[in-house]
Amino acid sequence: MATPAEDLEPWKQLHDCIEQNDRSAAEALLDALPPEQTVRVLFRLSSDDQQRLLALIPPENAADLLHEFPDQHAADLIDHLDTEAAAHIVDELPSDDGADILGSLDREHAEAILGEMDPEAAGEVRELINYPTDVAGGLMELEQFAYPETIRARDFIRDVRERRKDIEQLPARLLLLDPLGRPTGAVHIEDVLLANPESALGTVSEAVPTLPVTASLDQLEDYFDEYETPGAPIVDELGHLLGRVRRQDFQEALADRASSDQLKVQGIVSGEELRAMPVVDRSRRRLSWLSVNIVLNIIAASVIAMFQDTLAAVIALAVFLPIVSDMSGCSGNQAVAVSMRELTLGIVQPRDVLRVWWQEVSVGLMNGVALGSLLAFAAYLWQGSAVLGLVVGAALAVNTVVAVSIGGCVPLLLKHVKVDPAVASGPVLTTVTDMCGFFLVLGLATLALPYIA
Amino acid sequence: MATPAEDLEPWKQLHDCIEQNDRSAAEALLDALPPEQTVRVLFRLSSDDQQRLLALIPPENAADLLHEFPDQHAADLIDHLDTEAAAHIVDELPSDDGADILGSLDREHAEAILGEMDPEAAGEVRELINYPTDVAGGLMELEQFAYPETIRARDFIRDVRERRKDIEQLPARLLLLDPLGRPTGAVHIEDVLLANPESALGTVSEAVPTLPVTASLDQLEDYFDEYETPGAPIVDELGHLLGRVRRQDFQEALADRASSDQLKVQGIVSGEELRAMPVVDRSRRRLSWLSVNIVLNIIAASVIAMFQDTLAAVIALAVFLPIVSDMSGCSGNQAVAVSMRELTLGIVQPRDVLRVWWQEVSVGLMNGVALGSLLAFAAYLWQGSAVLGLVVGAALAVNTVVAVSIGGCVPLLLKHVKVDPAVASGPVLTTVTDMCGFFLVLGLATLALPYIA
Repeated sequence: MATPAEDLEPWKQLHDCIEQNDRSAAEALLDALPPEQTVRVLFRLSSDDQQRLLALIPPENAADLLHEFPDQHAADLIDHLDTEAAAHIVDELPSDDGADILGSLDREHAEAILGEMDPEAAGEVRELINYPTDVAGGLMELEQFAYPETIRARDFIRDVRERRKDIEQLPARLLLLDPLGRPTGAVHIEDVLLANPESALGTVSEAVPTLPVTASLDQLEDYFDEYETPGAPIVDELGHLLGRVRRQDFQEALADRASSDQLKVQGIVSGEELRAMPVVDRSRRRLSWLSVNIVLNIIAASVIAMFQDTLAAVIALAVFLPIVSDMSGCSGNQAVAVSMRELTLGIVQPRDVLRVWWQEVSVGLMNGVALGSLLAFAAYLWQGSAVLGLVVGAALAVNTVVAVSIGGCVPLLLKHVKVDPAVASGPVLTTVTDMCGFFLVLGLATLALPYIA
Repeated sequence: MATPAEDLEPWKQLHDCIEQNDRSAAEALLDALPPEQTVRVLFRLSSDDQQRLLALIPPENAADLLHEFPDQHAADLIDHLDTEAAAHIVDELPSDDGADILGSLDREHAEAILGEMDPEAAGEVRELINYPTDVAGGLMELEQFAYPETIRARDFIRDVRERRKDIEQLPARLLLLDPLGRPTGAVHIEDVLLANPESALGTVSEAVPTLPVTASLDQLEDYFDEYETPGAPIVDELGHLLGRVRRQDFQEALADRASSDQLKVQGIVSGEELRAMPVVDRSRRRLSWLSVNIVLNIIAASVIAMFQDTLAAVIALAVFLPIVSDMSGCSGNQAVAVSMRELTLGIVQPRDVLRVWWQEVSVGLMNGVALGSLLAFAAYLWQGSAVLGLVVGAALAVNTVVAVSIGGCVPLLLKHVKVDPAVASGPVLTTVTDMCGFFLVLGLATLALPYIA
């Protein structure tokens, strides 16, 4: 029954290698995997097998493999390895990645791993471990290519030659420092290439803007938007060079934030869930959000309970309540999406809320009339009552304007009061629009009751 | 009343400069803006002012400014400029950006602009214009740093020195070509730095993997995940070098896809809307999605119409229908979000649908029982009927399992039939779970009718 591709089942073969402690077979298997399959195969292994695999293969390969896992999962794996195996793997990671992982473990365990690590690597990780992951300090690596501004081109080339085997990649530009360790400029590699070997690099350098170690992701974005450089030098409050944030690491952090926001908008409030996590954990995380929502939902629906007499008189109204609720949610969500996008792009700020509201009202009026007419027509066709049609159509039209107003403005207002708009916009939107929608349908119907039949 | 920051109103000052054709004042104003304010100020100008600003300032500054606008908006601006002004600005853009913009205009207008451009720049844009924007061909720039493998280090350095003023940035590695123009290897800049000036660069090169011009964003992702290089060489079907995709441009394309997906999930089906677009346009785009949804909603709600007798007997049920509909939507959306995330990461593929379903069912059962119990309790408190509580609680519990099953599996199935899961998952989810939820609440209530009251 299985297709040929299923016959191979590489995760079963990998599981067998792990069972038999067969390091070379495991390595050969991993090497042979097409790159787009690697992460899928790794996630077919149990967490236990994943840990044993990391301990089985050489630490430098394990460090490479760890990059395949999303950050939190990688930290969990390291957390469950024995201390020595964990230390050897973290030794091989770039110091910023190592600090991210150890920073998310409990302090005692992190210290134990640091104690087993190569002292130099451990020292670098220690310098970085206390910065939050979403500021420059948490994204930077320690600078490997800073030189005194007085160094001659010839001496620099000799130094690079001596360090040859330790250098993975020469950066596109070198930082130059004054005697106190503050960046004074930068030299492009091609300028070194073309410079007189006897001249001090300081004479061919250009000014280099720096960022404080506390710079936020937004500040980094402004920096990299403004300057076409592959890295941003990071300094402490006295201007001393601490490290550099590579453009690539910044872009990855930005992408992580975007994907975490997307999950939050859809109700994964922690910003991360993988089905490889324990099922009780996943249930609890999702439930924390759902239980808030059900309470809000019950509150909103209690509006319906206030109009039981009207409902009893015109049972058909019960059909339209969920329609008005769902459609207002859809319209409002579109407005939320556009506001979140414009906030991210920097096109709007919280103080632009009135302008945004006005821009939404104009679209909401048009769409409200269109949707309301459609629903009115459907209601008339079904029940033969023009008044019923008018009631539900008018309710939907008005509530569409309400929904886009709330959807457009709430993300800005939440941002203003420093509540995460990705998490909170949806529940605020649906609760208010539901209450308002139910009230409009049933309130209008109550007024028109004598004419509905 | 205005705050001091509002007093300045830089967009009004900028508008005045534009009115008075005051180029230098406009430039001074733009230069003085903090980088995080630039895009906001630009979007406070009318589209007309934006176009006049681009035509007013020198073309190279206009090209820089154009980067501040999202792609589609930038293309619209160029579309409305007069041909000569547009040509001068596109002359200054990197050839891949120029091709993206001209490729989105109608053919005749693009040809007119190309005709006015510098012939060399126009030639480069022509080579790139026919590739879709989301494959390697659409993301690449033409390679500036490919040399015959026989070139000596000394001759290369002389060449760089001669081209000095045309070179914006030397890449981290040079590509070497055989006599037919096929890449045979690459040399890192530091190896040139350290090489014997008389030796051919081919002797210090390393192998370089290439990608076909038709490579997808996913293939580019695999490439950049596997190789720590700043660029991917792109070749035609015969292996001849065509250009390179820079890691930075690839990462931007990936981020654009993610933000477009996020908008689609929330009902902006075109994947882009900015409030600066004409209001009729925005209304029409949003309505195309809403009108499909309202039809689906009416179909789903028609289930309620089948149970009018039950509703008439127990009016309180009308309160619970929107709650079950909304809560199932929430639970289902969480599952959609996790599936979209795991599809993006490559952890799951469409053929893993049964495994995903099983992983969702286990979470759905736990959360369904929890939410169902909560709703049952609320119903009992309100109406004093244990049977009513049981009916709505059981309906929500079962429908939660249905919702997460559909939410988890539908994105994989849509991907399998090559329908965009970001656009279509939501409507499929809400329609099916609404129908199922209404049927469960009202069907169970009909069965239990003698015991409710």
